[in-house]
Amino acid sequence: MLPSKTKIKVGLIGTGFMGKAHAFGFTNASRVFDLPVEAELDTVADINEAEAGRAARAFGFAKATADWRDIIADPEIGIVSITAPNALHKEMALAAIAAGKHVYCEKPLAPLAQDAREMAEAAEAAGVKTQVGFNYLCNPMLKLARAMIEAGELGEIHGYRGLHAEDYMADATGPFTFRHDPAGGGALADLGSHALATAEFLLGSVTDVMGDCVTVIDARTDASGTTRKIEVDDIGRAFLRFENGASGSIEANWVATGRKMQHDFEVFGSKGALAFSQERFNELHFYSTDDAAGRQGFRKIEAAPAHPPYGLFCVAPGHQIGFNDLKAIEVAGYLNAINGDGAEPFNFRAGLRIQTVLEDIQQSSLERAWRKVGE
Amino acid sequence: MLPSKTKIKVGLIGTGFMGKAHAFGFTNASRVFDLPVEAELDTVADINEAEAGRAARAFGFAKATADWRDIIADPEIGIVSITAPNALHKEMALAAIAAGKHVYCEKPLAPLAQDAREMAEAAEAAGVKTQVGFNYLCNPMLKLARAMIEAGELGEIHGYRGLHAEDYMADATGPFTFRHDPAGGGALADLGSHALATAEFLLGSVTDVMGDCVTVIDARTDASGTTRKIEVDDIGRAFLRFENGASGSIEANWVATGRKMQHDFEVFGSKGALAFSQERFNELHFYSTDDAAGRQGFRKIEAAPAHPPYGLFCVAPGHQIGFNDLKAIEVAGYLNAINGDGAEPFNFRAGLRIQTVLEDIQQSSLERAWRKVGE
Amino acid sequence: MLPSKTKIKVGLIGTGFMGKAHAFGFTNASRVFDLPVEAELDTVADINEAEAGRAARAFGFAKATADWRDIIADPEIGIVSITAPNALHKEMALAAIAAGKHVYCEKPLAPLAQDAREMAEAAEAAGVKTQVGFNYLCNPMLKLARAMIEAGELGEIHGYRGLHAEDYMADATGPFTFRHDPAGGGALADLGSHALATAEFLLGSVTDVMGDCVTVIDARTDASGTTRKIEVDDIGRAFLRFENGASGSIEANWVATGRKMQHDFEVFGSKGALAFSQERFNELHFYSTDDAAGRQGFRKIEAAPAHPPYGLFCVAPGHQIGFNDLKAIEVAGYLNAINGDGAEPFNFRAGLRIQTVLEDIQQSSLERAWRKVGE
Amino acid sequence: MLPSKTKIKVGLIGTGFMGKAHAFGFTNASRVFDLPVEAELDTVADINEAEAGRAARAFGFAKATADWRDIIADPEIGIVSITAPNALHKEMALAAIAAGKHVYCEKPLAPLAQDAREMAEAAEAAGVKTQVGFNYLCNPMLKLARAMIEAGELGEIHGYRGLHAEDYMADATGPFTFRHDPAGGGALADLGSHALATAEFLLGSVTDVMGDCVTVIDARTDASGTTRKIEVDDIGRAFLRFENGASGSIEANWVATGRKMQHDFEVFGSKGALAFSQERFNELHFYSTDDAAGRQGFRKIEAAPAHPPYGLFCVAPGHQIGFNDLKAIEVAGYLNAINGDGAEPFNFRAGLRIQTVLEDIQQSSLERAWRKVGE
Repeated sequence: MLPSKTKIKVGLIGTGFMGKAHAFGFTNASRVFDLPVEAELDTVADINEAEAGRAARAFGFAKATADWRDIIADPEIGIVSITAPNALHKEMALAAIAAGKHVYCEKPLAPLAQDAREMAEAAEAAGVKTQVGFNYLCNPMLKLARAMIEAGELGEIHGYRGLHAEDYMADATGPFTFRHDPAGGGALADLGSHALATAEFLLGSVTDVMGDCVTVIDARTDASGTTRKIEVDDIGRAFLRFENGASGSIEANWVATGRKMQHDFEVFGSKGALAFSQERFNELHFYSTDDAAGRQGFRKIEAAPAHPPYGLFCVAPGHQIGFNDLKAIEVAGYLNAINGDGAEPFNFRAGLRIQTVLEDIQQSSLERAWRKVGE
Repeated sequence: MLPSKTKIKVGLIGTGFMGKAHAFGFTNASRVFDLPVEAELDTVADINEAEAGRAARAFGFAKATADWRDIIADPEIGIVSITAPNALHKEMALAAIAAGKHVYCEKPLAPLAQDAREMAEAAEAAGVKTQVGFNYLCNPMLKLARAMIEAGELGEIHGYRGLHAEDYMADATGPFTFRHDPAGGGALADLGSHALATAEFLLGSVTDVMGDCVTVIDARTDASGTTRKIEVDDIGRAFLRFENGASGSIEANWVATGRKMQHDFEVFGSKGALAFSQERFNELHFYSTDDAAGRQGFRKIEAAPAHPPYGLFCVAPGHQIGFNDLKAIEVAGYLNAINGDGAEPFNFRAGLRIQTVLEDIQQSSLERAWRKVGE
Repeated sequence: MLPSKTKIKVGLIGTGFMGKAHAFGFTNASRVFDLPVEAELDTVADINEAEAGRAARAFGFAKATADWRDIIADPEIGIVSITAPNALHKEMALAAIAAGKHVYCEKPLAPLAQDAREMAEAAEAAGVKTQVGFNYLCNPMLKLARAMIEAGELGEIHGYRGLHAEDYMADATGPFTFRHDPAGGGALADLGSHALATAEFLLGSVTDVMGDCVTVIDARTDASGTTRKIEVDDIGRAFLRFENGASGSIEANWVATGRKMQHDFEVFGSKGALAFSQERFNELHFYSTDDAAGRQGFRKIEAAPAHPPYGLFCVAPGHQIGFNDLKAIEVAGYLNAINGDGAEPFNFRAGLRIQTVLEDIQQSSLERAWRKVGE
Repeated sequence: MLPSKTKIKVGLIGTGFMGKAHAFGFTNASRVFDLPVEAELDTVADINEAEAGRAARAFGFAKATADWRDIIADPEIGIVSITAPNALHKEMALAAIAAGKHVYCEKPLAPLAQDAREMAEAAEAAGVKTQVGFNYLCNPMLKLARAMIEAGELGEIHGYRGLHAEDYMADATGPFTFRHDPAGGGALADLGSHALATAEFLLGSVTDVMGDCVTVIDARTDASGTTRKIEVDDIGRAFLRFENGASGSIEANWVATGRKMQHDFEVFGSKGALAFSQERFNELHFYSTDDAAGRQGFRKIEAAPAHPPYGLFCVAPGHQIGFNDLKAIEVAGYLNAINGDGAEPFNFRAGLRIQTVLEDIQQSSLERAWRKVGE
């Protein structure tokens, strides 16, 4: 009776938190945005068959499988969502790309930049659309911040300070996990990737870095009860130079007791400044030297329909969107790109870029010397 | 292949913002919660057939209709969601109840308490489950607040201050709308209902009120270009007495320039206090006299998996849920109640209760005298 | 060698915290402001002679006495500062006025308005200058707020919400003190006086009130071990009507657990709004509808040299003045008035005014009915 | 009649803002604290005789002179306060020390560490007491922070982030001033000195630094109309290693548009964390993992009598001290030290220490390499 949208079937690998977030994302993107294409939740894969079944039921997929290769092999599936452990991303993505599927992969693309490069190049050669999960960038307030900077509302940019601090590794008795794996682990990789992505999203390319990576808790016990020396950073800091001439710094910190989501930045320009915290991500604080003397101050701009696509979620200001809504925005942008409308919000090439800068910071820290990015 | 959930078909009347929010709510409740019953979006009704079609497509309904009575007449539909203009709620709800359907109605139930009473009594007589949209109460931080009060973490309650202020009517050149209708309109009805619901959610029944309803902008122009005198309140204040012996106050204000979602409260007890603002609704501020001397202060508790059902939306603290997630929590509670598991989060009887207190405040303001509630 | 200032000798009655604050105030006013007249700390009186001596030495007075009448009798003393218990204010002030001295009296002028009236009239008849300690009004940010309102930066005023909440009486085991004395005691008298003074300072005269005074803790033990029934309010609320047509409310609360200085206000107008908290009294938050769409928000104006007399204390913004600096501003204004330059910041007539409004609120609460002020 | 205190005469060199602040400091220290010694404002010197006279009258000095050497030559003067331009500090201080006087010098002690060293050594050899103006450290909340760290309330310290950002040099059209002088100028010297002093005050000695000093505005016009190349840093960053094993960072920034007093820090430990901003310096935010699960959060501790010497300024919490009160605390500590009671709050040796670390950061930035401090 009603005109139908183009459908595209989705296969999801992984049923953990990010798997659930992807499922939400596809469902909500279709409900919130009026997209020309609609994602259909088709198959979910988990090595544990019962878990796959539970997830299918809970997330709304039609089918479940214990073998992710079933998804690759299914000619009807158009998008493969990868939320499996990082170490498996490359094999899965390359298989999906080889099968001509669009690939949506959680961050990090792969533990090492060389792997991420292979993945990006394969996708580009195959002409498929890719997406890496950097959903903080999908926040309407971050888009507003970028638009304000680009429009010159801050004047010439003088400096930047970025941060992503949480405390999930602050407990020294916590176990050794895959995040501590020397290949690709550490706070800089886990959280600094967000801090860097935000920095480049706002100010453009970083050209030079000086890193300072520190291990705070020297050893942890793994699942087998073995004490493992920790080789990755608990705190990763960097001085930055941007192509636009500005300088700045970032810090990634997963032992920041008390902090749950301190993904913050301040950017200072000749005419204004912005301050933001992901702890209150529906707000952007703006200072303008254009305000009258004696009336200047940082003003708290609250997310509102004036800041698209906020209005698709809430018709009135101040109602606030949530973390999962950021995922829906990300998916909507990706589906539009698949449909030929605009670029992917953050494709494999962009993921590779962040990985590259990260490794330059790590290398710089090891060498205790500044480094050009990508050389 | 997979075991199926019990399905229950939903008919939605109204396609505006709240219609969309209901659709999200049903979809997300099923994705986020592992419910024994799954809502199926079946039919959406709008007086404008093309709009109904558009909404069906956008929100994910199988069918569209221009006649809401089609939904009532459809024996397969189990839940009727009413998001049509307030003046129509009663007729629609009574028809749905008569047809044995569960009814989910946006607030206010009806312009006047006498109508709300009829609706509540009809539903109770019919044995159907009802729900009124008071989703702010579904916030995990409000549940935490109530649990803390009930557990005695604040000691004996000494005082309460509630508020719901926004600025959507602050512009005197804005038009006369249905919200200005003397029957059921005004800031107290529109926003004060939330302030009251929160107050009773936290402290229990209000027994006495003294109202102060003020019209700030005397006249507005309606759609036909006619100047209309405004008879409803732009600001509605009340002193309150609670059954538990505490006293308090609320203010509802829709001309509070600059405020977008100042649905706030402070509650003070003999041992502690809580402060909350809907502007930052993933936070609850708690003061405890149990803290060591010289170390006391309001502490900012951020929403976390320790505050269910937050963890079903985000596995880590600080990520934050959004307005639409509150709706999903509301729907999940309602679906559970329909399935026989627990009471409805806020049924017609509860909606009637708020309407009753509201009218007592309005009446008290007219009489310029204190009033017992419900006498 | 250097040209001297006119000197005026000060006699201080009372050596407690406010006595110390007066001494500071006189000293600092002279250091910070370039006043034509300099206050000389001459004699301090305390019923306990040793304490008077200690205070003289500590505060910098030349002489000490156990008899406050020595100060009245000393023809060289020009200003009498009264910081003795409230019940003694009237006798002391009338004696000083009769002796032709200027009188600076801590708030409240007297327990009852009728006494305050006698004092104000005596001073006016004698032509001496008077001052009551309402130093919160001397805050540069409050002066800024008033100037902005007067200049129309908020447009027409729509509403007001004032508050003064602290927790120094929240402990039910705390003793019965003079503040609980039925004659002049209670939270409304103690804290509500500030809330009212601020409200009238900003918006002009209150014309009608509806009070709600509540005793939360029914009995306390006095110094002799006797249990005393508490008859004064622990929480005093009022609805207000202002001469300018605006409506508003205040709350005074001394059982507000966790609050130390919640002397706050919000004022909403047709074009803008202000929000202020004495907890952070070097800030004023301002919202303007003149800001560009999508860029509006409450902005935090920090105290700066643009807000006189802040610049006399700190040459740069953001350094912040303290509570005692407010006292210095008050004294400077008073000394200028004594020297014939401008009106006193808050004279006995102004003190009487606040006392009158207070008593109307208390009476209104007793009568459970609205009351015209001063009738 | 009353027992007198020991008097010590003060000579002040310089009549600008810091001169005024010193004068306040001496006066207020005596009024607020019950010190065994009282400072007497004796002589003030300024190269402009009329200005010296005006200052004497305004600040309360007995005499004025155009020649600072009159102060040195006066055998009755015990303390020399130096608030003249930085370049003159050394000559004046050495002369005062040679005359056996105690010396209180504004920061920085001298443009270069080698000069500061000479001054510190001369003072130590002469046995006089010295003080450098680092009054932010005198804040009761900073003393609380240090006490909490020392008492182990944060557990083992994991990381530190310090900052001092203001915007007084953000305007590129602002003039070339003495603060831009290559000898001793720059944001790191001016503001970074505070950030470093706070870092070492809280965590102890810094052992290694990696600096990043950046000039943002390349040229400015001096008073003669000449364009001058800027060689000093507008932003100075550093990575830090502390002797206690912790790592951290600081940033000094005088082009941080919108920031007036962003002298902030966060310190993270294994059991807790502290966050502080000088913008609201009567607050300290504390997170403790000892708080119950689901009840944890940063709590805002407001300055109170429990945090000495706050109670000497205000008898009740929440009233707040101001910038000039910090100076009074500094002076009181210094006067006590002169009287043989305790060490000076921040003597020349401490000033030299900060100068040394600063120069190591500047040198490290030039060399683009890590540096041991003081080698």
